[in-house]
Order: sequence, then structure tokens, then C-alpha cells
Amino acid sequence: MRIIIDAMGGDKAPYEILLGVRDAICSCDAEFTLVGNSGDIRRIAVDTGLDTDRCVIVDTPSVITMDDDPITAFKRKRDSSMMVGLGLLADGKGDAFVSAGNTGALFTGATFIVKRAHGVSRAAIGTVLPSTEPCLLMDAGANITVSAEYLEQFAVMGSAYMRKMYGIQAPTVGLLNNGTEDGKGTPLQVEANSRLKACSAIKYVGNVEGSAALFGACNVLVTDGFTGNIFLKTVEGTGKRLLRSLKSVYGKNIFTRLSALMIRKQLAKMKKSFDPSEHGGSPILGISKPVIKAHGSSDAKAIKNAVLEAIRYAQSNVTGDISEAVEDISVSKLL
Amino acid sequence: MRIIIDAMGGDKAPYEILLGVRDAICSCDAEFTLVGNSGDIRRIAVDTGLDTDRCVIVDTPSVITMDDDPITAFKRKRDSSMMVGLGLLADGKGDAFVSAGNTGALFTGATFIVKRAHGVSRAAIGTVLPSTEPCLLMDAGANITVSAEYLEQFAVMGSAYMRKMYGIQAPTVGLLNNGTEDGKGTPLQVEANSRLKACSAIKYVGNVEGSAALFGACNVLVTDGFTGNIFLKTVEGTGKRLLRSLKSVYGKNIFTRLSALMIRKQLAKMKKSFDPSEHGGSPILGISKPVIKAHGSSDAKAIKNAVLEAIRYAQSNVTGDISEAVEDISVSKLL
Repeated sequence: MRIIIDAMGGDKAPYEILLGVRDAICSCDAEFTLVGNSGDIRRIAVDTGLDTDRCVIVDTPSVITMDDDPITAFKRKRDSSMMVGLGLLADGKGDAFVSAGNTGALFTGATFIVKRAHGVSRAAIGTVLPSTEPCLLMDAGANITVSAEYLEQFAVMGSAYMRKMYGIQAPTVGLLNNGTEDGKGTPLQVEANSRLKACSAIKYVGNVEGSAALFGACNVLVTDGFTGNIFLKTVEGTGKRLLRSLKSVYGKNIFTRLSALMIRKQLAKMKKSFDPSEHGGSPILGISKPVIKAHGSSDAKAIKNAVLEAIRYAQSNVTGDISEAVEDISVSKLL
Repeated sequence: MRIIIDAMGGDKAPYEILLGVRDAICSCDAEFTLVGNSGDIRRIAVDTGLDTDRCVIVDTPSVITMDDDPITAFKRKRDSSMMVGLGLLADGKGDAFVSAGNTGALFTGATFIVKRAHGVSRAAIGTVLPSTEPCLLMDAGANITVSAEYLEQFAVMGSAYMRKMYGIQAPTVGLLNNGTEDGKGTPLQVEANSRLKACSAIKYVGNVEGSAALFGACNVLVTDGFTGNIFLKTVEGTGKRLLRSLKSVYGKNIFTRLSALMIRKQLAKMKKSFDPSEHGGSPILGISKPVIKAHGSSDAKAIKNAVLEAIRYAQSNVTGDISEAVEDISVSKLL
């Protein structure tokens, strides 16, 4: 097993990325290909004690920044750590690729360099939610406008992922909507709801409201990338807002500070369950090989989790399952 | 000042509605028109000590339920407490109408019975968010599909409301979007962003992400009703999810329970700031007279707050300001 790492992608690259790889090396027996500025990588490896015996370093001259336009970056920065890394994955020089860099560029590069799995119309970013039950948001922000057909494929791909990665035999699928009744939503949701109801490859439970999504309403929450982004960032923002309110409550006086000390551990655990870095990276489902997007603000811990997720993902052969499942629904529509 | 009340609307009607009116009567000098089943109203008035000297009771035979289809309810249940109440407002038999009933039916009835203010293309529901700064979400769920022109009017109407009701001289306006850069979003957001930028009647600050909306990014958060509903319910759901996690943290053992006791008051205050019932009702902006939608699950406290909000709203003449502001932008486009 060889994991290819974009050493230059993310707000805290390359230092925290390499620190994350160093920590992951101790927890697995995979080998690594580190793509980026080789001078930086070697220097940080020495500083942090990263074991380079299990690493190949591939030197690349340019970096895609967070502000780069995805399409322009894909076209003009083919010598960047991200695009070179994706090329190595496409050429079979590794089993999975992890990047914390520009989401749009990674999605575009994965689609055009590694390519979509056979039969997949659009890949999508799957993100695990801080829900009471395992729940994957599909799409978390890649496809701003979609068709009902794409949403059906997102449902099938998300189900394959949850089956293999979470061991859920029949993952439930819900459509994010502004009410639970049939007929709710824009024409897109109305059509998607009918289509998902008729899809025998999944266990569809119907429309799911934003208020129910974190309480175990479904294992795969299907939506377009625009709404998915609004949903995900609202969860993050509301969580942050509440935890800050809580912090100011605890900071009030000596009694409240004492009170905080008493539940320190439990609070840390709760905070952890709302922390995206704890869930590892987000897979780009529908790409022919495993590509994992780590959060842009990833620190070493987040990268380590994303790397371990990438290993499990590559071992699971979810990409093969997805291809098969998507072809099955296409065939069943022809019959 | 006379406030018309839909005594039969909402999950806890009529009992909690009338209890709320009883409590509001003690805090204001307005008079009330209670619309609904007069037998029920009189009985509950006796039970709760509601002062009927300041109330007129209007008997109505039917009730619009939460499950009724809005258009059908509007057409077939003209003798319901909600539609009769709206008719009284339209006929000048009161200064504001408050209902905790079916949102879609209330919106439809307000639009066709009380009618839109001159120049307004679509009314919208404005909901105050649990943000660090006063922030009104426009539209919170009434218009599932909108045009960029509607969004511009929502911005102008929301600004007029925040100016009068919150004393903010130049309320900032943001567009809910999946990124802050120009060009983000679906074609609708791209067009609306250009339009809002060019609108001299408002103080536009650009696109606002879901994660920033609760941290004072703007005073008026503009969006279509579909996205607004997803946003609002996600805030509610995430808040509930975190507060429940916190509750289970506190219930763990004797130390954690002791810790909870020590910050009891502060926690209650924090919970209150995330409680929609504390913010009173949501105005339907763009209707020619004040119509206030209280939360469907409103208890007495929520109804009392919605009634007091309705009084302030009627006294403020925001409806007049909105009419003027909307006409101003139409005229400025012609010149």
C-alpha cells in the first residue's frame, strides 16, 4: 500500500502535513510518496524526525493556492504538487491520494486526471456529519448545480461507501429538503424524490429536514453541492457559536471556572465529536481511484486521520463497488 | 391599538395561545380580537383568568391544520380562524394579526386577503437569528423559487425593518452563498450579487457563508426560501444537538451534576439566546399591514413575545417605510 501526499496543499502546509505523515507512519505499514518542494520536505523531515526510509520524495516546482481558480489552476499548474500527485495516482504509482489543498482544483484534477469511475456522471464530495448516527453528506460542495439523475447516483455511491466503511448493511438514504412531505422543495427536489423512491438499489426514507439530519434521520444525506455547502458550514458555524457562548459562560468567575474544571474531560470529548479533523478526510466518491480531501485548515492530527482513512478506503475497494452499483442502476433502467 | 389573534393556530392552540394573550394584556394597553371557536375561547378565558373586557371574540367554525395544503386551505377554508382574522385586518378592524398556524396558508392568505404593499413583487418571512449581532434572515421559507429582483426587494425590506425595529442606521446586507468571492453560487446568486452591489438603497457587504452568518457578518441575510429554510432548521438542529450533548455530559456523575448547578443561571441564559420563542414572531414583510407568524410550537411565552412584537411593529410604521423604499428602487431603475 502506497499513499501519495500533497505536501504543499492546505493552510498549514507543508509543516503540519509532514508532521501528520510522521505520526501516521507509526500507526500503519504503508509507504508514502511526498509530492512538493523537495528542499522544504527534506528540511522539515529532519526537524520533525519523519522517517524518510518509507517515503519517496517527488520534487514539484509550483503550488496551487487556496485562492486559485480551479479550472485555471488545473490548466496552468500541471507541475504543481496537487496535479503531479494526481498524475502519479492515475499512473498506478500509488493506491490513494490525500490533499488538504484547494477543493475545486482537487475535484477538477481528480475528474480529468484520475477520471471518473465507469458510468458515473458526476463525482461528489462525501463528508461525515457530527450526527448521532453515522451520516454521510453527498454532495458537500463540489457540484453547484445538479440534475435528479446525479442525485440518484450520489445516493447509490454514498450507500456503497457507508456499507463498506461503516459496515451498515442497508444504509438509509434521505433527501435534504424544506419539509418531509412529497412535493416539497424546488422542481429539482420534487423530481429527485420521485426518482429516489423508485430506485431499488437503495433504502430511501424520504425527504429529511435540516433539523433532523443530525439526529440519525438517515445514513446518506443527498443534496446538491450548493445546499450541501450551506448546510455543512451552518453546522460548523452554529457549533462554533455555541461552544464560544459556553466558553464565555465558564470564564465568568471563579465558581464557573471551577465548574469547567470538573467536566473538562467530558467537554473535550463533546468538542471532539463536532471537530471535522477527527473524522479524517472526505472522499471524492465516483473517481476511479481513492482521492481524499482533508480540511483546508488541517493540522497534523487531521492529516494523520485522513491518511489512515485513505488506507482503509483503498483496502476496502469501495471504488470498485461504486462502479458496479452505478452500472447496475443504469442497466436496470434499460430493462 | 388592536391586535387580532388566531386563537386556533399552532400545535398548542387554543390553550397556550390564550394564555399568551392573558400575559401580554398585563404588559401593554392594546385591545384584542380573538378569532376562533367562541365556546373554547370563553371556557379557557375563565380557566386562565384572561381579562375578556379588553377582548372581542369572533366565532369561526373551521380551523386550518398544520397539514393542510396552503392553496387548498386558502380557497376552501375562508371561514377558518386564520382567514377570517386576515379579513378583519384587511378591513381595518385591527392593526396587526398574529398566528402560530400553518405558515404556507398564512403567507398565501396574507398575500391575497391583506395584499402586498404597493410595488412589492413577493412578500417574505423575516426571522431573527441567534447571531452575535442583530441579523434578520430574509426569506426564512416562504418563496421556494425566487428571482434576483425578488432578492433585491428582500434586501430593501429587511433593511427598512432593521432600521426601524433595531435602530440600526445603515443595516449591512449579505447574500447567503457557498463562498465569499464574486462568481460564487448558482446563476441566481451570481446575478443577485451583481444586482445587490449596484443597489444604492442598501449597505451591501457581499456574499456571506453559512459559517459566518451567526458571527455578525451582516444585519440582513438575503436568500431564497428553500435555502433559508435549510439554513434556519440546520441552526435549530445543531443547537439542539449540542445542548443535548451538553446535558448528557452534565448527567454523567455527581461531580458533573454539581458543576451544572454552579453555572445553572448562565446556561439558562445561553439556552434562551438560542430559543426561537424568545425572539417573538417573524414578520411577513411586504404585506400592506402587519402580519406576524409565531413558531408552530409556540407556548404562552412565545405568543406573549409575538404579541408585543406585533404592537411594536404596528407602532413603527415599517410597512409604510417598506412601500416607500421599494418604490424608490423601482423609480431609480427607471431614471
